[in-house]
Amino acid sequence: MRLVQFCRRGAEGSVRVGVERENGVVVDLKAFDQSVPCTMREFLELGDKGMECAQRAVSSSECVLPRSDIQLLSPVTGPDKVVCVGMNYRDHCLEQNAPIPTEPIVFSKFPSAITGPYDDIQLPSESQEVDWEVELAFVIGKKGKHIKEADALGHVAGFTVANDVSARDWQMKKNGKQWLLGKTFDTFCPLGPALVTTAALKDVHNLGIRCLVNGDVVQESNTDQLIFKTEKLVAWVSQFVTLYPGDVFLTGTPPGVGVFRKPPVFLKKGDVVECQIDEIGSIRNTVV
Amino acid sequence: MRLVQFCRRGAEGSVRVGVERENGVVVDLKAFDQSVPCTMREFLELGDKGMECAQRAVSSSECVLPRSDIQLLSPVTGPDKVVCVGMNYRDHCLEQNAPIPTEPIVFSKFPSAITGPYDDIQLPSESQEVDWEVELAFVIGKKGKHIKEADALGHVAGFTVANDVSARDWQMKKNGKQWLLGKTFDTFCPLGPALVTTAALKDVHNLGIRCLVNGDVVQESNTDQLIFKTEKLVAWVSQFVTLYPGDVFLTGTPPGVGVFRKPPVFLKKGDVVECQIDEIGSIRNTVV
Repeated sequence: MRLVQFCRRGAEGSVRVGVERENGVVVDLKAFDQSVPCTMREFLELGDKGMECAQRAVSSSECVLPRSDIQLLSPVTGPDKVVCVGMNYRDHCLEQNAPIPTEPIVFSKFPSAITGPYDDIQLPSESQEVDWEVELAFVIGKKGKHIKEADALGHVAGFTVANDVSARDWQMKKNGKQWLLGKTFDTFCPLGPALVTTAALKDVHNLGIRCLVNGDVVQESNTDQLIFKTEKLVAWVSQFVTLYPGDVFLTGTPPGVGVFRKPPVFLKKGDVVECQIDEIGSIRNTVV
Repeated sequence: MRLVQFCRRGAEGSVRVGVERENGVVVDLKAFDQSVPCTMREFLELGDKGMECAQRAVSSSECVLPRSDIQLLSPVTGPDKVVCVGMNYRDHCLEQNAPIPTEPIVFSKFPSAITGPYDDIQLPSESQEVDWEVELAFVIGKKGKHIKEADALGHVAGFTVANDVSARDWQMKKNGKQWLLGKTFDTFCPLGPALVTTAALKDVHNLGIRCLVNGDVVQESNTDQLIFKTEKLVAWVSQFVTLYPGDVFLTGTPPGVGVFRKPPVFLKKGDVVECQIDEIGSIRNTVV
């Protein structure tokens, strides 16, 4: 299933959870069952009960909205955590002459950085070095602490596409080299378009992943290059913190980012950044 | 006013917002006015309307609960952000032979680290170097971006006491020197006991601040030693991100932490850590 958050045109601000069908139409889950909550985070807290309801709604062919009537939002908003992983593609480490990490390097964005799959990326006047990073993201579906790798996928609701937009000056040179500020400007976390449930993907660790800027391919790799895969990341991070439904993980970016180009290239107003992962989807954000 | 979050004994899990009176009793705001929301974050979103309601409730002398009937929770839970500031006391910089920063150094904890004013700090088996850090904390009351220093206090709902519990091994030696993991274990952010509204404090930047471990004073300073004060921190961080009601700021710690003692001292099971700030209050957490 492809779970989405959306609002109806003319009812912006009123979030709903839906399921995207093959032909792009969206099933409105709350219209199907009034007891379904309004946000994905609350929907995921229902666990299997929520997923079963979504299945029934899709099977019913009722409560279908044409795409033209709705605006897709980020599939998750307001999570407890946006967990990010650095240096997690073999080829991205090579690109910057960095050793392959032996343990995941974990940092974060504030949830306020999340924006929708087709929303604008606001270029802040505080940075001159804003860069792209296509990433495979996943979302926690079930609470847990000290989760074993063998059980980890049972805690993952599904996968989506992220752009880990990064202000390199603030990430790498300022703020005592703590990455947070450079990673967390408003709109620096486009997500979407759908949360593709784990069962709907054959092998999430063998998917083509790419980023295009103004139509030119700037990043192109495969999720089989991930050093620490989904199961390991869930197990690793849950040593430190309890994971909650809705928590978002960004798993790291492949090579081809702007800062390591010679000369470096950064985003400017008017650029269109498209992040694609095969079988999951594509997000497209204009820099303004 | 001293705003609190609490639950009634026997109704744990059912959060309420209240006002603590001089004699320690708590006014239940939802009992006074059914339209008051259940969490501090939602209460703060009401703005002046919420504060006026709280004032009316206190004046009415109705809906008063004895302290023995309730458990105090962290005054805020589930914020969008827990913003932390490093190296923000002059005397703490001297302690570690570090230069006085010219700009705030900002990092974060996940909201899942927040725990109540008298709750236990769980010592994780993953760290051998867990340390204390008493800090002045403040909570955002009004949404804003690019807030000017002159307007900043108008965006602050009030102040409280925090312990920025820190696993020094994970903060300083591991995770690519990104501080996040060492700072964000579950229960590593005790907060409370009350959110003291800004108007109730004469000068928040001239208050005695101290930390006691098993009754021995280990940190003792004054908030007049803060390098970047509340107004500056609000203005600084809101350059990067929109601030929302409920966002928590931890403003940094004075000298006397365990890691810089000779030899270093770390917390062990059974230790009792008490963090005090004059006029605001005291939190007391046992290490388990």
